[in-house]
Amino acid sequence: MHLTIQRDVFMQAVQDVSKAVASRTTIPILTGLKLEAHADGLTLTGSDTEISIERLIPIEEGGIELIQIQRAGSVVLNARFLGEIVKKLPTNEVTLEVSPNFMTRIESGQAEFHLNGLDPDEYPRLPELSSERRFYLPADLLKTIIRQTSFAVSGQETRPVLTGVNFSAEKGFLTCVATDSHRLALRRARFETDNDLTFQNVVVPGRSLNELAKLLDREELPVEIVLTDQQILFRLKNISFFSRLLDGAYPDTSRLIPEEYRTAVRMNAKDFLQAIDRASLLARADRNNVIKFVAEEATTVEVSSHSPEVGKVSERVSILSLEGEELKISFNSKFVMDALRALDASEIEIQFTGSMRPFILRPVEQDSVLQLILPVRTS
Amino acid sequence: MHLTIQRDVFMQAVQDVSKAVASRTTIPILTGLKLEAHADGLTLTGSDTEISIERLIPIEEGGIELIQIQRAGSVVLNARFLGEIVKKLPTNEVTLEVSPNFMTRIESGQAEFHLNGLDPDEYPRLPELSSERRFYLPADLLKTIIRQTSFAVSGQETRPVLTGVNFSAEKGFLTCVATDSHRLALRRARFETDNDLTFQNVVVPGRSLNELAKLLDREELPVEIVLTDQQILFRLKNISFFSRLLDGAYPDTSRLIPEEYRTAVRMNAKDFLQAIDRASLLARADRNNVIKFVAEEATTVEVSSHSPEVGKVSERVSILSLEGEELKISFNSKFVMDALRALDASEIEIQFTGSMRPFILRPVEQDSVLQLILPVRTS
Repeated sequence: MHLTIQRDVFMQAVQDVSKAVASRTTIPILTGLKLEAHADGLTLTGSDTEISIERLIPIEEGGIELIQIQRAGSVVLNARFLGEIVKKLPTNEVTLEVSPNFMTRIESGQAEFHLNGLDPDEYPRLPELSSERRFYLPADLLKTIIRQTSFAVSGQETRPVLTGVNFSAEKGFLTCVATDSHRLALRRARFETDNDLTFQNVVVPGRSLNELAKLLDREELPVEIVLTDQQILFRLKNISFFSRLLDGAYPDTSRLIPEEYRTAVRMNAKDFLQAIDRASLLARADRNNVIKFVAEEATTVEVSSHSPEVGKVSERVSILSLEGEELKISFNSKFVMDALRALDASEIEIQFTGSMRPFILRPVEQDSVLQLILPVRTS
Repeated sequence: MHLTIQRDVFMQAVQDVSKAVASRTTIPILTGLKLEAHADGLTLTGSDTEISIERLIPIEEGGIELIQIQRAGSVVLNARFLGEIVKKLPTNEVTLEVSPNFMTRIESGQAEFHLNGLDPDEYPRLPELSSERRFYLPADLLKTIIRQTSFAVSGQETRPVLTGVNFSAEKGFLTCVATDSHRLALRRARFETDNDLTFQNVVVPGRSLNELAKLLDREELPVEIVLTDQQILFRLKNISFFSRLLDGAYPDTSRLIPEEYRTAVRMNAKDFLQAIDRASLLARADRNNVIKFVAEEATTVEVSSHSPEVGKVSERVSILSLEGEELKISFNSKFVMDALRALDASEIEIQFTGSMRPFILRPVEQDSVLQLILPVRTS
């Protein structure tokens, strides 16, 4: 392998595929990136076996030449060193040349690196997914879905299936659900498919989705999503993002969501978020994050918190409307702040069915997204 | 105590004095800030016994009223909670009112906090420094002195006196020295004094100076510096910064600095810094940071590094001149990069007296600052 490449393009690609490389691994070759030069350009691959990312740098893009390939070939180079080196190279023109023993010369300006490379034949092969089960989502919608659900996955490995977001599809609608059994995030979206695609229990690790989200910023084309029994593939322009799916049956969450309510409060989301943020300053001190919420008046609600050691705080927050019964309830302020940030709406409605029952936050007059939270029992 | 104050002014003052508050302390009242309202305004104090900071918020400044004091008095409030609360208050007008039991009401807009306060009589008194030993330094010069020396103090408590910067003065010149016994930073500056001030062995903890530097950004007036046997006081506009001095005799460092050299290399500081930064990417891997430097040619030097595991790197760096003998030397790249950043010069001269002897970095044609570094023995 022998090629000349633009530093900035190379650096971006190395950073992209490095997202799949684990800092610690028991398989030494997985600390490396596979580089493969061929007639179409340079393909980089990083993997930790759960996530694999493949990125093509084409020979040219938009009429601009990105790579000159003098000799095809491949090598595996340490991801961390390669990333740091490329970032600090002195000029934008970089030459890579691999010797038969995989020693790789990287030259830029007056700087010359010789990195010990590894045999690319020892690098694990990516799965070749062939499946009829495929659909398309706009990149910004996919990013929003991830942002509105993945924060609510469980961080505990006791029920591994809850560390993922459950994707299901029926009648042209995609439903994504995440829950850690104290709260639940749900997002629905219409999707495009060539056939009448129906599936359920496709559970994608939350960590995979968070890494994928970082790659979606620059994406303008719709993302193609391909499903197999064990893997999901997100195909972006020049990037293939593979993730393992989680085993096990995702719990049926539909019956957790109350279908009616006894109290509904509409309010400005930002005012509410800031008031809870202030009240949680003292709540945090006791490490249970508990905030009290009282809806008894037509124009304001009260949020308050009390810490015997530090003191207490209370604040009245203006509301748009109160419908139904008066209510006192306690909740974890972090869960409500996470939910409000995820809704990303200027006006929200909170629907309660009593102080011991889960409550729902959703944007006013929009039912594609909801956040459900279990209250905290106090007494 | 009962007063109304502007949030932003209050927040800045709380942040300023909180720099002296230790996150962990065995003296509970030192987790707090002392607030004292009097005819001239509000005085805030924070201390960890090593550093104490006192900050006055005057009643008015530049014709703008900052505080209205309804009732004088004082209280001690938890620094961390107070800081977080003030930062998040909803409006710029803040009311503070202290009850006889030191419970303190903080009100802003619709938010109302009640913080448990402590008795200010239990807060340690700041030393009252009266001394004839005082001088003045422009704030930006003091900040530069700190930046050019304090990074070189020792991080190890085995010789506590080396964790400070040694200040001495003679004939209108101030000399500041820091060393961790592997490197040494020295800065000289002319200073203003009312009398013919001479002193030596005034060792200010590096940590104190770093905290002080953060307060110097906004300072426009010269800083008054007052010395006693145990304490140093830096008096800024509205801020008094006290630091304990370190006990013990600071070593005589003057004889460490070679007075002549056998090789002198002049070069562009930025080019050299970047080349060392690149070479250190592999040096770091072995955790000894060793870089090899070879000066044998009239127009370039070579920096290189080698790590059996990862690979090797070499780079030729253009120089302005080479005077004297040819030289090969090895050094810790981190020390040289720290020194180059501290010199802050576009062109520097490095003076060597052999590959086993300390070498000096200084700006070309400027002798108020120098950085001395011990080489690393290899082989």
